Amino acid sequence: MKVSIRHSEPEDFEALREIFAQPKAMAGTLQTPYPSEEMWKKRLSEVPKGMYSLVACVNGDVVGNLTLFQRAGWPRRQHAGELGMAVHDRWQNKGVGGELMAAAIHLADNWLNLVRLELTVYTDNQAAIHLYEKWGFQREGTMTKYAFRDGSFADALMMARIRDANRGPASGSV
Amino acid sequence: MKVSIRHSEPEDFEALREIFAQPKAMAGTLQTPYPSEEMWKKRLSEVPKGMYSLVACVNGDVVGNLTLFQRAGWPRRQHAGELGMAVHDRWQNKGVGGELMAAAIHLADNWLNLVRLELTVYTDNQAAIHLYEKWGFQREGTMTKYAFRDGSFADALMMARIRDANRGPASGSV
Repeated sequence: MKVSIRHSEPEDFEALREIFAQPKAMAGTLQTPYPSEEMWKKRLSEVPKGMYSLVACVNGDVVGNLTLFQRAGWPRRQHAGELGMAVHDRWQNKGVGGELMAAAIHLADNWLNLVRLELTVYTDNQAAIHLYEKWGFQREGTMTKYAFRDGSFADALMMARIRDANRGPASGSV
Repeated sequence: MKVSIRHSEPEDFEALREIFAQPKAMAGTLQTPYPSEEMWKKRLSEVPKGMYSLVACVNGDVVGNLTLFQRAGWPRRQHAGELGMAVHDRWQNKGVGGELMAAAIHLADNWLNLVRLELTVYTDNQAAIHLYEKWGFQREGTMTKYAFRDGSFADALMMARIRDANRGPASGSV
């Protein structure tokens, strides 16, 4: 299976709406049920400054999405990037997340010179936590009642990957 | 000493610029040196939707600032609010922070119905951590290299106060 990575385009709105309408992908993020095409059209055509919105494609179909956000307005945090990721329910545990993560880390390490990559993941999302740990993310703490999910508050882990200041230039060394 | 709390007004720009130009207040937040009056004029006249920007006054002088931000765009996190606080260096450790915190918790508990209040504090800011713990905030984890501060990366604690769902209506019960 060949997964290719590119930046999202406004025309991907239907595929992104579909990914985030899946029960697992929706619950595992901060999305809400019944996403509209119009909302995704807008989101993909107005990507904020500092946000990289990548998609993973298999045979031309968009099956996953990763955002890397270097939030504007905080000069003292320009070394940090926030990651968010979702893979279509049918494509989970098939390596798509790993390809997205490899691309994000290449971008962060070798082109944006980020030192800290951070993300939030629900404490019971074992598959995602396993992927993040494989890529060098460490657990920093548990945020109690982080978000509402399917009728109750769910806890989330804060995880971060600190780039080794002494490593060589190549990414993928993790 | 009588501390009174009110919402900030655009006319407070000079006082807020002054507070955040102080070495301790600046280092202890995400602000940068040499804040301009124009920046603070703009910030105080364009307070984002969902942000409450309170000031503490002593004898008519603004000596502290607290923001409570219920970030828009995330319906699944509308029970959460982010706190940020700064007190003028000359007025630290005199009870100003406590008055600001009491006001914020009254607002969060009794009017906004927030369940989770969260904040970030540098791990070596003992006075602030002590204040937050006194008001019921607990340490959730340490974020490594959270922000750049005076020449190097500094770690920060994520802290949160979870409102007791079974408590009575009064705030200040902490």
